[in-house]
Amino acid sequence: MSGIVRTPEPPYYAVIFSSQRTEGDHGYQVMASKMVELASKQKGFLGVEGVRDGELGITVSYWDSLESIKEWKEHVAHQVAQDKGKAEWYSAFSLRVCKVERQRFFEMVK
Amino acid sequence: MSGIVRTPEPPYYAVIFSSQRTEGDHGYQVMASKMVELASKQKGFLGVEGVRDGELGITVSYWDSLESIKEWKEHVAHQVAQDKGKAEWYSAFSLRVCKVERQRFFEMVK
Repeated sequence: MSGIVRTPEPPYYAVIFSSQRTEGDHGYQVMASKMVELASKQKGFLGVEGVRDGELGITVSYWDSLESIKEWKEHVAHQVAQDKGKAEWYSAFSLRVCKVERQRFFEMVK
Repeated sequence: MSGIVRTPEPPYYAVIFSSQRTEGDHGYQVMASKMVELASKQKGFLGVEGVRDGELGITVSYWDSLESIKEWKEHVAHQVAQDKGKAEWYSAFSLRVCKVERQRFFEMVK
């Protein structure tokens, strides 16, 4: 979950998850790593970019189709995490499903 | 640029900007705040969510249409910032223009 993902040519899908954490860890870090690991093995997963700065975090995951997003949403272990998220980890979040239409990459010439 | 944006009902557009900073400030912080301030005054601007954790940052801005995104891209002061970005502030970035199709909000009951 480090750095910029080299996604394929659009169109593909992005899930933008913005969240505000509650105080304390409550098993969050371990579960977060586990979820990234599990998601990476899902069919249609294209990558994930994530940043957390204290309270606010943004995680963007990329997928080949809405069907793949639906399958990940319904994954049993992910559902357990979603429930824990609402009960303990997040004071607020937004989740947006988007179709990526255009992209551009830049790298500084060394 | 704090917290989760209460965007209107989809469809609308999101620009996902993921970036890796170079070392040092080089006037970045001042310009970043100025750009958020300017963008907020643009026609069709719906809000912005941003997080930076050392090297990696993700900024998602929300817009009512592709036309508004284009106008912001071509804003003179923003173009100066874009040039500085490529010349000094970013070692790498990705920029993705997306159509938001679905959204969901959650808030913990106090």
